[in-house]
Amino acid sequence: MTLTAVQYGVGPIGKRIVQVAHDRGIEFVGAIDIDPEKVGQDLGTVAELGTELGVEITDDPDVALAASPDVVFHSTISDVTAIDEQIKAAVAAGADVISTTEELSYPWYHNPQAATKLDEIASSHGQTVLGTGINPGYAMDTLPAVLTAPCQAVESVSVTRVQNASQRRKPLQEKVGAGLSEQRWNEEIAPEAGHVGLPESIAMLAAALDWTLTGIEETIEPVIVESRTESEYFTAEAGDVAGIHQVGTGFVDGEPAIELDLSMYLGADHPRDQIEITGRPDLTVTVDGGFHGDVTTPAVVVNSVPRVRDGDPGLATMIDLATPRYPEAP
Amino acid sequence: MTLTAVQYGVGPIGKRIVQVAHDRGIEFVGAIDIDPEKVGQDLGTVAELGTELGVEITDDPDVALAASPDVVFHSTISDVTAIDEQIKAAVAAGADVISTTEELSYPWYHNPQAATKLDEIASSHGQTVLGTGINPGYAMDTLPAVLTAPCQAVESVSVTRVQNASQRRKPLQEKVGAGLSEQRWNEEIAPEAGHVGLPESIAMLAAALDWTLTGIEETIEPVIVESRTESEYFTAEAGDVAGIHQVGTGFVDGEPAIELDLSMYLGADHPRDQIEITGRPDLTVTVDGGFHGDVTTPAVVVNSVPRVRDGDPGLATMIDLATPRYPEAP
Repeated sequence: MTLTAVQYGVGPIGKRIVQVAHDRGIEFVGAIDIDPEKVGQDLGTVAELGTELGVEITDDPDVALAASPDVVFHSTISDVTAIDEQIKAAVAAGADVISTTEELSYPWYHNPQAATKLDEIASSHGQTVLGTGINPGYAMDTLPAVLTAPCQAVESVSVTRVQNASQRRKPLQEKVGAGLSEQRWNEEIAPEAGHVGLPESIAMLAAALDWTLTGIEETIEPVIVESRTESEYFTAEAGDVAGIHQVGTGFVDGEPAIELDLSMYLGADHPRDQIEITGRPDLTVTVDGGFHGDVTTPAVVVNSVPRVRDGDPGLATMIDLATPRYPEAP
Repeated sequence: MTLTAVQYGVGPIGKRIVQVAHDRGIEFVGAIDIDPEKVGQDLGTVAELGTELGVEITDDPDVALAASPDVVFHSTISDVTAIDEQIKAAVAAGADVISTTEELSYPWYHNPQAATKLDEIASSHGQTVLGTGINPGYAMDTLPAVLTAPCQAVESVSVTRVQNASQRRKPLQEKVGAGLSEQRWNEEIAPEAGHVGLPESIAMLAAALDWTLTGIEETIEPVIVESRTESEYFTAEAGDVAGIHQVGTGFVDGEPAIELDLSMYLGADHPRDQIEITGRPDLTVTVDGGFHGDVTTPAVVVNSVPRVRDGDPGLATMIDLATPRYPEAP
C-alpha cells in the first residue's frame, strides 16, 4: 500500500523533503504553510517537482491533516518549545512525525520540559516523533556514536565539519553572514548564534555513550577572507566575512570530552567531515568533501520513515531507533 | 547489579573477549573449552588477565551454564550449521548469546534452514542471539549500511579493507598463508577459502538496503611479495606469499552492486577501511589504518551486550538491533 504523507512547512528544506519523498513513491495528501504566497498553490508546483500533485497548500493544519496521513514531515522552526501544537495536531491525526526542528533532535538536555511534554503527546496518541537531519541528527552525533562501536574504550570524540557555503542554498549563505563586513556580522549574525544544533548534538552523543555532561560551551566567530571570494549570491571582498566558525565543547568531569568544530563559509578549502576518536583504538575517519547539507538532510529525513513507523510510541532519537540506513522502499 | 557471563570457547578471540568484558566489569561465572590443556585451568590465567577469576574452564557446557549467566560469549567455530547444540544450551540456561561464528552474522541467505532453526531455538527460550565481530559484523556491512542513511539514492557500495597481517595475531597470519611458497599456498590455503564472512557481509548489506541478490561470487588469490618481508612469526622471501586478496561481489539484477575487497598480508601498504557509495550523493569514507581486527572484534562483541539484552527474542542481526555504539556500562 502506498504510504501517505503531509508536508508541514514548505520552505527550502521542506521542498527538498517533498522532492525526495515523491521520488521514493510516497503520496502527499496534504501540505501546510503560513506563507500567503504559497497558500492555495499546488504542492508540486511550489516544491518544483515539474508536475502538479493535486494537493493544495493550506494554512489550516486541520484541513491538511484531515486526510489522516501515515507520516508528517515537519519543517517549520528551530525552537522546540514552540512546536507543541503543530506536533500535537499531527499525532492526533494518527501520523508518525519526522521533524527537522534542530532542537528536537535531542531536547532532553536543554529543554527537558519540552521533551517530556512532546514525549507524552506522542505516547498518548501511540505515535513516534523523531527530530533529525544531517546536522544535527547524523554527521556530528549519530555517525560518531556508531564509530565508537569497535572501541574497547572511548576517552574523547571530536568532529570537524567544513562546508563550502558557496555550494549551499542561499538562505544558508545568508545565515552565516557571507559578504558582510565584520562589523555588520558582529551586529547581525553573532547574536543569532549561527547554526542551531551543536549543543543538541553534544548532548545526544553524550547520551549515546552514557556520559554525564558537566557543561557545554559554544563559541562563534566570523571567517574573514584575505581575497575577494564570491558565490552565486554573495561577494566577500578582502577583509569581509565569508561565513562562520563555531565550536561546541561538551565537558565530562570538567574536562573537554566532546568537541564539535563547524565551519561554513564561501570557498572553504578541503570541505569534509572528519571524526576523531581517542580511545582503544584511536580512530580517524574522513568523509571526503563532507556530507552536503542540502542534499543529505532530506535523505536522512525520508530514510527514517521505516524506522519511525516501527518505533515505539513517544519522542525517539536517532540512537534508540533501529540502525539507520537507506531503505529501498519507504 | 553486576552482569554475569559465560565464555564459550577460550581461543585467541575468546581470550580477548574475556579481557575486554572483564575490564568493563562483567563477571564471568563459567567458561567452556574442549582443549585438554585448558580444561581445569582458571579462566583468568588462560585469558592472561594477570589475575585468577576463580572460574575453572570445563569441557562440559552444562557445568558452566548451571550458573545461569545473563549472557554467553560464544567463540568456537565458523560453521553456522554445527552450533545448534551450543546455542541451544546457552539460551536454555536463560542467557542471551553474542557469537563470533562468522556465518551467524547473517545466515539467512546461505543457510536459511540453520537460521530458521536457531531463530526458533532463541525465540522459544525468549532470548536474543547475535552473530557479530568487526568482519563480518561491522566494517564491511553495518558501517557501510549506516553510511547510506544520508543518501537520496544508492546504486552500488564497495568496501576496500586492507589489513597489515604483520600486526595481527599469529593464527591470522597462518590462515592467510604468510611465508608459504605459491605452490604450497595453492595447495593448503586456497581450498580453505581464507577469510570466512564476505558472502555473509554481502547478504547482510543487501538485506539492510532491501536489495534482492541475484548472485554472489567470491575470488581468492595470493599476494606475492617482491622482496623479503617478515613479521614476528613468519618470513616471506621474494616470490613467496605474504597473504591473501579476496573479493566478494553481490549482484542485483545481474549487475555487480556490492563489492567487498579484502587484503590481509604481511607488510601491507596503506592499511585502511574505505567505503565508497555510488548514488546521490556519491560518498567516499576512509578509516585511516583500518579497524584492527584483533582489537576491534572483542570490542564490537562486548559493546553489543546492552542492545542484545534489549533485543526482541530470536536471531538478531546488527542492523535490526538499536544503533550500535560504545556503551559506558554493559
